[in-house]
Amino acid sequence: MRISYSLTKDLLGKIFHAYGFSEDESGVIVDSLLAADLAGIESHGIQRMVRYDYAILSGMVVVDAKPKTVWNTPISAVIDAHRAMGQLVSVQAMKLAIQKAKMTGIGMVAVRNSNHFGIAGYYTRMASKEGLIGISMTNSEAIMVPTGSRQAMLGTNPISVAFPADPVDFCFDAATTVVPRGKLEVYRKAEKATPDGWMVDADGQPCNDPDKVIQNISSRAGGGILPLGGCTELTGGHKGYGYGMLCELFTSVLSGGPPSYRTYQEPNVADSAHFFMAIDCNAFGDPEALKAACSGLLEDIRNAAPAQEGQRIYIHGEKEVEFAATVYKDGIPVNEKTVKEMETIARNLQIPFSLV
Amino acid sequence: MRISYSLTKDLLGKIFHAYGFSEDESGVIVDSLLAADLAGIESHGIQRMVRYDYAILSGMVVVDAKPKTVWNTPISAVIDAHRAMGQLVSVQAMKLAIQKAKMTGIGMVAVRNSNHFGIAGYYTRMASKEGLIGISMTNSEAIMVPTGSRQAMLGTNPISVAFPADPVDFCFDAATTVVPRGKLEVYRKAEKATPDGWMVDADGQPCNDPDKVIQNISSRAGGGILPLGGCTELTGGHKGYGYGMLCELFTSVLSGGPPSYRTYQEPNVADSAHFFMAIDCNAFGDPEALKAACSGLLEDIRNAAPAQEGQRIYIHGEKEVEFAATVYKDGIPVNEKTVKEMETIARNLQIPFSLV
Repeated sequence: MRISYSLTKDLLGKIFHAYGFSEDESGVIVDSLLAADLAGIESHGIQRMVRYDYAILSGMVVVDAKPKTVWNTPISAVIDAHRAMGQLVSVQAMKLAIQKAKMTGIGMVAVRNSNHFGIAGYYTRMASKEGLIGISMTNSEAIMVPTGSRQAMLGTNPISVAFPADPVDFCFDAATTVVPRGKLEVYRKAEKATPDGWMVDADGQPCNDPDKVIQNISSRAGGGILPLGGCTELTGGHKGYGYGMLCELFTSVLSGGPPSYRTYQEPNVADSAHFFMAIDCNAFGDPEALKAACSGLLEDIRNAAPAQEGQRIYIHGEKEVEFAATVYKDGIPVNEKTVKEMETIARNLQIPFSLV
Repeated sequence: MRISYSLTKDLLGKIFHAYGFSEDESGVIVDSLLAADLAGIESHGIQRMVRYDYAILSGMVVVDAKPKTVWNTPISAVIDAHRAMGQLVSVQAMKLAIQKAKMTGIGMVAVRNSNHFGIAGYYTRMASKEGLIGISMTNSEAIMVPTGSRQAMLGTNPISVAFPADPVDFCFDAATTVVPRGKLEVYRKAEKATPDGWMVDADGQPCNDPDKVIQNISSRAGGGILPLGGCTELTGGHKGYGYGMLCELFTSVLSGGPPSYRTYQEPNVADSAHFFMAIDCNAFGDPEALKAACSGLLEDIRNAAPAQEGQRIYIHGEKEVEFAATVYKDGIPVNEKTVKEMETIARNLQIPFSLV
């Protein structure tokens, strides 16, 4: 089913305001959250409201937290989020990175002691919309087994990079695992076996049973999701593991926060770490010329010979922008369970509920 | 067979000096080249001398080129290499990035109009040896087919990131293709079919015949090597393609050079582009504390539960450092063909030849 985009936006605004966020703060959170639904990344949009609701009501997210800059240079900063809503401190951090980049050419901001920040691409698009190159990453609950291990040590650890271009900015945003945890949940709901090369069980053996692996991850019994590239060096699994490590180093090490395998250790403490970077294209030449070069490159890739007649070659970020147009027109596609969850959240906060 | 490391180093020094490089320049080139053999990356070491020999003698590499800084800011620069030896301009560029990083916290240098630069990890280790974070990338001859295409558009496009750590720096260095071209050549020499998920033929169909694909790449008939993650989005091929794009954007777009699919277009013109970054850990806190946090993270990963009893979990860069110890002790492992090629090169330059 589909629900109205504008009614959903209104409802979410009221919900976050009812939690205690200011109207401005609620607007920022809702914009970031709905960016996922607009991009077709259902797992990170309103489908996740039930988890944010729990995090806020349990105190995992501190509504009136005051993130504090604990290290500051003209080109960089470290922010202690003090358990703030991940989206709020992340928008603040990327704004700071952009501001520094406009002054010095680059801004880098690492954040610790935070919560789930939604989609990484939301923050890189903040930079590219202003004509800057954007990079963002976050660590997360440990689900990735390093090559050669059966123990989940790294998170989904997504990395996003956006680059200004016409007609649509380049925006790469991907988990460094072969698939995010949400994909396993889709297969579990459908009672289907997952494809080879996605998961290992508690004994480190290849496994196609999503229910088993999700349970193992939750109970920390061992096993988890494989890095991009799969199980062996033959298919490049050590490379995906390497990208997961990069994410870990830039988020937890640079921010002074714990690595993925030490997040979510205490009840109701996420302790996530993020990293944001903005680069002013002026650092390398005339920004308009660089944007034109980028746009030309992307257009050449679009026009490359397709693998099969009529097949389209996508640029990263294009599908998401096109999907948004269908959402504005026809509404947000959701499953009934999500609508029921939203209804319960609204009822508990005594907010009138209408989404269609 | 194995050849003496020190005799090989002496011989290479004489060879590069005979080409017309100064003694200092020859030393820099040889150090970079042998770093590949020390790391066990045979494809990028002396095995490649025959190609460097051709490049230098044909004028593709201009021996007395004077690379020129064409854009300069306190945190960044763009260098036109004027077809210099890739290793020379790359060492110069990373030194400049490190120098800027020590002044401002970060240095980023893009290079255009260059040649093959050897292994990306050589340059990132320059940074990490000095306690800085290093990043390097290069574009290269088009061999990667973007997801959905049968046309090679992107190069091997390796990305390297190094991070200071004890007892061994973290050093990730990997092609964004599932395998580099050299791996195909190994399978061709052995007359073996390559594993699934490595290549597509001229019609965009999965292919396991390395001879066919190498010929197709050389003649630009279509097809090529798949991105990390393989052929479909199911295994994350679009992610490897995304990392290949990142490399392309940071190298060719930021330097003002041509993208991979426009390199090696004229006879004896490589027109490669590179990117180098150095970050002073001071930008995020006490460098010693950050190094200790990184070392602790790496040690925890090493000590994670192995997939199989007794299996070792490697940190990126470890295998290479351990391999180097065997090379210093027992010599460089090479095949006879490489030794014959080196002998011919030495004879043509009238240099006495002895490697054992």
